[in-house]
Amino acid sequence: KLTYETTQTWIVVTLVGAAIGLNSALIAIVTDWLSDIKLGYCSEAWWLNQKFCCWEIEARDGSCENWIHWSQALHMGPDVFVVKWIFYVFWATLFATTCAYLVKVFAPYAAGSGISEIKCILAGFVMRGFLGSWTLMMKSVGLTMAVASNLSIGKEGPSVHMACCVGNVISRCFQKFRTSKAEMREILTASSAAGVAVAFGSPIGGVLFALEEMSSTFPNRTMWKSFFCAMIATMVLQAMNPFRTGKLVMFQVSYDREWHFFEYLFVVVIGIFGGLYGALVIKFNLIVAQLRKRYLKNYGVSEAAALAFFTALIAYPNVFMRIDMTEIMGILFRECEGAQGENYYGLCETNGVGRLVVLLLVATVLRTIGTIVTYGCRVPCGIFVPSMAIGATFGRMIGLLVKAWQVSNPDFFLFASCNPDMPCITPGTYAFLGAAAALCGVMRITVSVVVIMFELTGQITYILPTMIALMITRAVGDWFGADGIADRYIRLNGYPFLDKEDHVFGVPVSHVMQSEMTVMTATGMKFKEIDEILRNTNFQGFPVVQDNKSMAFIGYIGRSELRYLLDKARSVYKAHDTTGVRFSPDTNEDPEVLTSTSDVDHVIPGSSDFLDFGPYVDQTPITVHPKLYLETVMDMFKQLGPRVVLLEQGGKLVGLVTIKDVLRYMARIETSNTTDEAIDDME
Amino acid sequence: KLTYETTQTWIVVTLVGAAIGLNSALIAIVTDWLSDIKLGYCSEAWWLNQKFCCWEIEARDGSCENWIHWSQALHMGPDVFVVKWIFYVFWATLFATTCAYLVKVFAPYAAGSGISEIKCILAGFVMRGFLGSWTLMMKSVGLTMAVASNLSIGKEGPSVHMACCVGNVISRCFQKFRTSKAEMREILTASSAAGVAVAFGSPIGGVLFALEEMSSTFPNRTMWKSFFCAMIATMVLQAMNPFRTGKLVMFQVSYDREWHFFEYLFVVVIGIFGGLYGALVIKFNLIVAQLRKRYLKNYGVSEAAALAFFTALIAYPNVFMRIDMTEIMGILFRECEGAQGENYYGLCETNGVGRLVVLLLVATVLRTIGTIVTYGCRVPCGIFVPSMAIGATFGRMIGLLVKAWQVSNPDFFLFASCNPDMPCITPGTYAFLGAAAALCGVMRITVSVVVIMFELTGQITYILPTMIALMITRAVGDWFGADGIADRYIRLNGYPFLDKEDHVFGVPVSHVMQSEMTVMTATGMKFKEIDEILRNTNFQGFPVVQDNKSMAFIGYIGRSELRYLLDKARSVYKAHDTTGVRFSPDTNEDPEVLTSTSDVDHVIPGSSDFLDFGPYVDQTPITVHPKLYLETVMDMFKQLGPRVVLLEQGGKLVGLVTIKDVLRYMARIETSNTTDEAIDDME
Repeated sequence: KLTYETTQTWIVVTLVGAAIGLNSALIAIVTDWLSDIKLGYCSEAWWLNQKFCCWEIEARDGSCENWIHWSQALHMGPDVFVVKWIFYVFWATLFATTCAYLVKVFAPYAAGSGISEIKCILAGFVMRGFLGSWTLMMKSVGLTMAVASNLSIGKEGPSVHMACCVGNVISRCFQKFRTSKAEMREILTASSAAGVAVAFGSPIGGVLFALEEMSSTFPNRTMWKSFFCAMIATMVLQAMNPFRTGKLVMFQVSYDREWHFFEYLFVVVIGIFGGLYGALVIKFNLIVAQLRKRYLKNYGVSEAAALAFFTALIAYPNVFMRIDMTEIMGILFRECEGAQGENYYGLCETNGVGRLVVLLLVATVLRTIGTIVTYGCRVPCGIFVPSMAIGATFGRMIGLLVKAWQVSNPDFFLFASCNPDMPCITPGTYAFLGAAAALCGVMRITVSVVVIMFELTGQITYILPTMIALMITRAVGDWFGADGIADRYIRLNGYPFLDKEDHVFGVPVSHVMQSEMTVMTATGMKFKEIDEILRNTNFQGFPVVQDNKSMAFIGYIGRSELRYLLDKARSVYKAHDTTGVRFSPDTNEDPEVLTSTSDVDHVIPGSSDFLDFGPYVDQTPITVHPKLYLETVMDMFKQLGPRVVLLEQGGKLVGLVTIKDVLRYMARIETSNTTDEAIDDME
Repeated sequence: KLTYETTQTWIVVTLVGAAIGLNSALIAIVTDWLSDIKLGYCSEAWWLNQKFCCWEIEARDGSCENWIHWSQALHMGPDVFVVKWIFYVFWATLFATTCAYLVKVFAPYAAGSGISEIKCILAGFVMRGFLGSWTLMMKSVGLTMAVASNLSIGKEGPSVHMACCVGNVISRCFQKFRTSKAEMREILTASSAAGVAVAFGSPIGGVLFALEEMSSTFPNRTMWKSFFCAMIATMVLQAMNPFRTGKLVMFQVSYDREWHFFEYLFVVVIGIFGGLYGALVIKFNLIVAQLRKRYLKNYGVSEAAALAFFTALIAYPNVFMRIDMTEIMGILFRECEGAQGENYYGLCETNGVGRLVVLLLVATVLRTIGTIVTYGCRVPCGIFVPSMAIGATFGRMIGLLVKAWQVSNPDFFLFASCNPDMPCITPGTYAFLGAAAALCGVMRITVSVVVIMFELTGQITYILPTMIALMITRAVGDWFGADGIADRYIRLNGYPFLDKEDHVFGVPVSHVMQSEMTVMTATGMKFKEIDEILRNTNFQGFPVVQDNKSMAFIGYIGRSELRYLLDKARSVYKAHDTTGVRFSPDTNEDPEVLTSTSDVDHVIPGSSDFLDFGPYVDQTPITVHPKLYLETVMDMFKQLGPRVVLLEQGGKLVGLVTIKDVLRYMARIETSNTTDEAIDDME
């Protein structure tokens, strides 16, 4: 039962998973180091970040002699705020500029998140080079710098893109995956799961993300491979142990307090915030994206430099924006009591709440603006982590307010269920909920967010509040439009992609069909004629009919097959312009197995006067009746994945439909941003 | 955007979820009470179980005066082993017999697990009464008794079945769900998610179970409803708080020890055990099921009585088998240290390991045999909990052995990474892994098992060992056959269900088609003729062709539509045996909207001489070319859900294919237990 084929697949999945884990660990280490370079350097060994430089030699007061702040390096003392600020801004701008330059010169596809494009690729769209090794390399290098520059971007979208590049690069070395699109799609789906898994240390969350967001069909077989790939990647990442914590869970917390019934009120507030945040970011970020497309197409590097400069300038004075977003999330999630409690910047003190609330509010607002203008710029950038960080600052703010309220009015009726001798509110849990809600608001995924959050923090006690917050976020978000940001980018860029939502149009497919088609006729065509059709059109294939009058349907022939046959006819069979070409239907009972035209040397039957391309005609393309509902045809596109559906009535070809036709129709009836030109631009 | 339609759906989902949560809470309370009745009764109030009877009045030594053991009731002293044993066996047998009797008399469908049948129903199969209110009531009442009788059965399969009954009963009150199969299917999928959610207190696990095991298509819309339904059900369950713990997490543990690298060795052992256990149980349980079908068909009550009698007789002397399986799992999962540590029956002591290992091994073996002979008998019964309990006893045994080994040989090279001053092995985690592996082995689900286990125990630290154990279990299990027990029962019972696995046959669909069909012709049929066809055949519908010679394809008409039309023709239009009937193709451009024949009063065009059923012919059934690969047609069945696929070539009908034809072909080419007769038995 263990055939060579299956073994090969599992070996490839293992290799891909291991490579993804390795890549992710390396990026984590380099990012950490670059991030710290903004603040200072290690005098013992310049290649160490602050943590490793000061590993176990930290003095009592938290300082460490080996780590030299830039103000010290200039002999101006260890704590000159302005000098530190200037250096911070300088390094940030330098990193972002270098990154944007590298991306522009070596791999333009490495810019952006990549999730939208991979969704389209998994749905069958072809983008050459998008998953190539150059893209992989530049995205990896660029990502370290982009994250270190403290731009308002995250690493999980790029992590998915890089994982898919790894999957593509490795599996292309094997014949089986080169020739089978279905196999390749499975590997890419599994890779995307592993990409999220390593970004968050969340193997199951990764699988669910691939299921909920990436792939429109997800058979058990694919789930199984995604599970395995995510597991291997996570194992390798943990074995590499880039953070030297020995733990997979990134933000270990141990919430042990009961959730009170009155707190559901604030869950609702946080849920509404998540929905509004998502709607706001989606709306304005898309406007920014359109402006960027129109005016900043050739100024990617300067744009990134300017963004990094201003972000760093504004971020440094606010403690909640200065350090890495991942780090700040960990701090905000933490509870104040217990062994792991930490009083970062007075977050746990009971006085000074006002100042903290203002700082957190400012951080929320500024980071939101930063995310709106930054996401989509010409460096590798994701939107998960910024969204979660924004949600966490907002949630912690709410938590602090509720806590302050409860402490000052313990007898208020809402707080009756609080035990008077013990702290009642854990602000960290509000930050946790806020992060989940903001992520759900912007991506419109739910189940995977729940699991990712639990795997991130290692605790599962607050599952019901989390689910309720996400329900509300989703409901509020859907009020403003059902699609997440990835789907909106797909439409903005005009990729031919049918989203997972079900539409009800109530019209027959004949409403959207093309009835003017370029067809091949079974007899009477000349070599030259076909050659000219291929030159003058860019259709992916052509229906074959008996003759132009009867339109009796015979089959379908793809452009690439036809091109190959013509070239071969000319070189081997000495065909000339006036040679006749027939597409005689094959009467053989068994279907042709024509997987690829390139690997076998086919014989074209015929004589010196005419050639017969009949055996190469696909006699069983998907055909439907023109009165079939458009919805059913859309299901066929999504579930069965054909490029074209032919409309046949009583043996007569009456039209054809492609995904583009469907999208064009949808754009016409919906008030949509997708213009007809955008769709016509598609490949 | 909030239409009446959507609001209605959400109201129904909320109602269904709430009812499922309520039902589950009631069952939990009654089961607890019945379970304790086997041991004694409450002198203060006979309707209280031991825990509530002794609530906060327990004496220092753990005894409680209000709770009267049966030996006490007979004035023979509180601790006469034999009397207690006899009462235990008596009550267990009584419960099982009553349960089997009720099921037999009132609702035969309430027997068994129900998961296999619901999978088929979700795939489009119709079983009248299977989801009715009688089934719901009897399954609820029966389940409490069956579980209390200490048979080797669980409550999660029945919980899914009851949840679907609730979903069906409630949603049938609304017009929209009565008429739309797709809407109904969504509600049932969401209900099944809620069923697992309440059985394990695991909302996300429930959603994933519905996705991985129950449904073959799972669009985001369905996931979203399942998420909501599971959430509501869990909230209601928690609000009812049947266990008075205030927690959703059933087996709270707080494993805080690092996992050592050498322990992966034992993870592999546990994984292999899971795979072997699953293969063994599936194999022998199916043999038992066949024997039961052949010899015990009419002896369901006696069988259940005998099983309960022997199970109770054997179980009582073994402490790990005497008490409820859910309870024992909680005990086995627990770590020995910390506040929640508990030294049940000396499980945490370092001496006496030998005796414990023997007891656990005996429990593992006996419970496995019990599960093999019991699962599938004529009471409501699931296989999740018994499998998990078996895995937990085995895992704890391994854990105890490893711990004893480590304690006696701390210098052995394997244990080098152990800290010498601290306990190194947590046997509870091995029990946890064992439970996960056994569940995966028997059901062949992975992702949902991981999530269910984490939601059950509230800890997520050991995610990688769990995933590895499940990988190995699955690989070992697949070696013996890829299907889980639910799929095997489907095949055993001969339900028309295409499993999710992909098959490659490499034959055109014409190999499996029926070319001899009963067709309707457009002209020339008489009323009597059609009536006789309906009487003498049991096809679900008939293709309509121009005439028997040309076989020019026109459409398809369902049996129920035809029946309705004939009845109406006779009553309203005074049709008689010789009235002509035509099926003239409709030339109207817009497709007919014919959702249901029952709610609108249709008009049949025609004259007194002939009637025209043409407008009621479905002109757009799914048709394919006879040379299309069988695999693609199977995909169509699975993804698009038609009852029949028609084969058309050049406008001519050449055959038709149903799921049965495909299954018959598969049975012929595979070495399979499904016989042709079994398939012919299908409705």
